Amino acid sequence: MDQSLENPRFLGFDVFGTVVDWRTSVADALRALFASHGRRDLDAFSIADEWRGLYQPSMELIRSGRREWVPLTILNQENLRTVLGRHSFDLSRLADHDLVDLNRVWERLRPWGDAVTGLQRLKGKFGLATFSNGSIENMVNLARFAGLPWDVILGAELSRTYKPQPETYLRSVAALGLVPSQVMMVAAHNDDLFAARQCGLRTAFIHRSNEHGPDQNTDLMAEADWDFEATDLDDLASQLTC
Amino acid sequence: MDQSLENPRFLGFDVFGTVVDWRTSVADALRALFASHGRRDLDAFSIADEWRGLYQPSMELIRSGRREWVPLTILNQENLRTVLGRHSFDLSRLADHDLVDLNRVWERLRPWGDAVTGLQRLKGKFGLATFSNGSIENMVNLARFAGLPWDVILGAELSRTYKPQPETYLRSVAALGLVPSQVMMVAAHNDDLFAARQCGLRTAFIHRSNEHGPDQNTDLMAEADWDFEATDLDDLASQLTC
Repeated sequence: MDQSLENPRFLGFDVFGTVVDWRTSVADALRALFASHGRRDLDAFSIADEWRGLYQPSMELIRSGRREWVPLTILNQENLRTVLGRHSFDLSRLADHDLVDLNRVWERLRPWGDAVTGLQRLKGKFGLATFSNGSIENMVNLARFAGLPWDVILGAELSRTYKPQPETYLRSVAALGLVPSQVMMVAAHNDDLFAARQCGLRTAFIHRSNEHGPDQNTDLMAEADWDFEATDLDDLASQLTC
Repeated sequence: MDQSLENPRFLGFDVFGTVVDWRTSVADALRALFASHGRRDLDAFSIADEWRGLYQPSMELIRSGRREWVPLTILNQENLRTVLGRHSFDLSRLADHDLVDLNRVWERLRPWGDAVTGLQRLKGKFGLATFSNGSIENMVNLARFAGLPWDVILGAELSRTYKPQPETYLRSVAALGLVPSQVMMVAAHNDDLFAARQCGLRTAFIHRSNEHGPDQNTDLMAEADWDFEATDLDDLASQLTC
């Protein structure tokens, strides 16, 4: 039998936004920092959004080859300095190890309520891989914190570039010894799924209409006929009869 | 506090021999093949040992730079052809997919009796990583088969060379965002531990005096003052107060 005609054997997950709620976790950490430094004028959600807003531009330097690959942990830390600096936050009052610790909030993100049970159900039938832009360090510590039962951590660090570059999907699929159609990308972001489909992977869209807060205006709906569309990971598990 | 003075945060495991009993599992698969092909004259244990005997020389080509890196799955498959050919096994009677399937026995190895419970206990206190020469595909499928609760699969494929080259240990440690003294190598093989110690990792020796069968004459004892020496992984968990 042509292997590619089998059901998907592995699911490759986007993590930030799809599996974990980065925004409220990051805002909590920033709020605590601002309070302890007498900067209650700063809005934690808005700064969290700004920090996350630098995510794509900083990766784009690497995707385009203008900068050599560094793990996301480094990019996040550089971006944190930039954002705090913009708001005249006195960085000299923050020890280096405090900045490193604050940056580790990306390893202490709360999973969405359905995520852990959904993943546990899916794991009975499929291998579970991270296809994330997070670094290996980031992904493994986050998994231990949040109880995410991954079988394997793949994604950006293995390919040394960032999604949506095709290498990130294809190198991850190859590491599993599979062909792309044996892997399904699971993401709350249409652009991630467009790129994965272009590489031959199957696709599942997860609705996360609160990822960016109450005013979210992106990824509110599936923008193509993805193979699956689910309200959350429990719903996906049900649709896949797990 | 100097991070390097903390307890180890991750344990890096050798897998073949230390966690799983490759020899009896491989011999079972070979015995079934020989029986179905009327070659009961072939001794399954002896051929398993021969197959495994080609493991080091085939990796040495890559370690020495004479051959570009390929995953162990490929080396094992080449070596299987070599060994069967030596014994006049009619390879033309074996379909390619049967050979591929037989080679996948390296993903269906039985864990030693103490391994799963030992790892589960250790996981409560330490991150668990594979520092194996197995490919990612090999390690993830073996973990799903045998119930090995790894947090992350590191090792040869990440470094694109094979132990005991220092890059394999050091690249794996770096992927965890740690320094070598924060990681302890756990292995039933003294040479693995010598190499890991040379890289600055801590070391734990596990006694597996039956890995190579009743006539085993290597690794019967700790050949240096390793940080820990344990009869099995349950014993290691007890010594580490897990």
